Amino acid sequence: MHAAGGYLVRPPKPNHSNMSVLIVGSIALDTVKTPFEEHADLLGGSASYCAVAASFYSPVNLVGVVGKDFPQEHIEFFKKRGIDLAGLQIADGQTFRWSGEYMLDMNVRETRSIALNVFEHFNPVLAPGYSETPFVLLGNIGPNLQNHVLDQVKNPKFIIADTMDLWINIAKDELLRLLKRVDMLILNDGEARLLTQQTSLIKAGAMIQAMGPRFVAIKKGEHGCLLFGQDEDFFSCGAYPLEDVHDPTGAGDTFAGGLAGYLASAVKGDVTFADLRKAVVNGSVLASYNVEQFSLERMRTLTQRDIDDRYDSFRLYSHFEVIE
Amino acid sequence: MHAAGGYLVRPPKPNHSNMSVLIVGSIALDTVKTPFEEHADLLGGSASYCAVAASFYSPVNLVGVVGKDFPQEHIEFFKKRGIDLAGLQIADGQTFRWSGEYMLDMNVRETRSIALNVFEHFNPVLAPGYSETPFVLLGNIGPNLQNHVLDQVKNPKFIIADTMDLWINIAKDELLRLLKRVDMLILNDGEARLLTQQTSLIKAGAMIQAMGPRFVAIKKGEHGCLLFGQDEDFFSCGAYPLEDVHDPTGAGDTFAGGLAGYLASAVKGDVTFADLRKAVVNGSVLASYNVEQFSLERMRTLTQRDIDDRYDSFRLYSHFEVIE
Repeated sequence: MHAAGGYLVRPPKPNHSNMSVLIVGSIALDTVKTPFEEHADLLGGSASYCAVAASFYSPVNLVGVVGKDFPQEHIEFFKKRGIDLAGLQIADGQTFRWSGEYMLDMNVRETRSIALNVFEHFNPVLAPGYSETPFVLLGNIGPNLQNHVLDQVKNPKFIIADTMDLWINIAKDELLRLLKRVDMLILNDGEARLLTQQTSLIKAGAMIQAMGPRFVAIKKGEHGCLLFGQDEDFFSCGAYPLEDVHDPTGAGDTFAGGLAGYLASAVKGDVTFADLRKAVVNGSVLASYNVEQFSLERMRTLTQRDIDDRYDSFRLYSHFEVIE
Repeated sequence: MHAAGGYLVRPPKPNHSNMSVLIVGSIALDTVKTPFEEHADLLGGSASYCAVAASFYSPVNLVGVVGKDFPQEHIEFFKKRGIDLAGLQIADGQTFRWSGEYMLDMNVRETRSIALNVFEHFNPVLAPGYSETPFVLLGNIGPNLQNHVLDQVKNPKFIIADTMDLWINIAKDELLRLLKRVDMLILNDGEARLLTQQTSLIKAGAMIQAMGPRFVAIKKGEHGCLLFGQDEDFFSCGAYPLEDVHDPTGAGDTFAGGLAGYLASAVKGDVTFADLRKAVVNGSVLASYNVEQFSLERMRTLTQRDIDDRYDSFRLYSHFEVIE
């Protein structure tokens, strides 16, 4: 039996020494179908995954919108994770709904339906006290909204943005404007190629840096992640060797949240490439756990011990000179 | 100017303390076309790449066949690399010829023509003294020939086999017979999926181990390589971040040769997983250099310093806890 609803990891206390992360993104109710299972009205959305993952490391200030139909149990879950909800808007209407289906090759996903609902008129306004949050993670929403958030922050220490193919296709100018304002961009391999029109991910990484962000992380799904820094700084992180993936939804958001949360918890001075290497591994650890169950279910029982164990496995699986 | 024909690395002396590697495979004259260049009658073939790569670490005993047209300069190149050619047959007729073309995405290759010539009746007979070579690398040729070589070896310490989709398609039973006799199989991701009918490379690796080899290396091209050992032993090696690949031909063979040569040079007792991790990195280093120029050209000028430098880069690019 899991005591206290399975929350074996004590969420960070609001005033502990770790710095906070401001997270903005979508909050959704998802219907997800895989070749083996289908589940409806699951907690989803980029901000949900980012915030819960980050909460394993640092206090989180969440900015998002849900409808009046949003289940109280999800609110309680966020609260139990220590996530500050002063920035959570509860609007008249229905919560954003997304429905998708994964093929037998779980790398292939089809969106079956989208209903923006209250998310259509989302205006991310920072709650009092949020504007000076040192770490900012702009989850995957329109770059106009991401820019709007940046207009409100003061003295940010480190800004990370996630994006997707949709925005590269329909809002590229706004995205390019955003890129000049962020320290780091996270995107997947297909998106990096789309954005740069380059086949080589190595060239693509450098080209994206030339668009603004000092750091770029290109996610490659089952092949791990490439991290680009200044000069010769480069890091290749393999993926955790999972035999079974039950629901890939939110893996990228969880990666970004774990990465941002780790940085906020560990970095005292400037963010260095050495910090980012470990942040990428922490993000990968969280993402590897999240895909083991649907929605955010795995995050409900995840313990610090689990995180430590898999972090050690990443070391063992990727370092070739290891004292065993 | 490169002194002494550019052979800046002194090949291992035949009687030095490193153990030898027996290498069998094809020796070919290749015509290779990329979107940018085309070159005819280049030195090629699995045994050529394997042997030259291995020669940077250990003495090599080569078994192969060429025709009377095989240029003397290639023989001289092998000799300068310290490769023992007592097992090189020079048969009446033409040397095996292969012609291929790479698309703009250099991961995609089309074979334009093949002329087996003297290779059609290749009977790999071990030269006197070859049968007790401790390390055996069965380069990519038909599994019937690979089995025939194993029938002749005595007390091998470690046997590695390479293979390809062709043999999985047309000689699967013979290949399965081979797998029960080898310590390690090297193949690429598509071949691993073809052999096991599994989408997941993690499952595929374990399934191939169940077919015989204790160790399996699955090459993923630009995404690096996965190494599977006993129990929980697993290693994920990223690829070197090359911006430009000029000719991918022989990358897999060079990887296998560097891996086998390293093992023969470094392993004193039994081959351990820790040895194999470093062997995979050494193979990756050699392969990353080889694709920088056509054919084996890059191997002519490669130095020990080059190898050491890139080995260090692999450490820096893949270890996430690094003292920089």
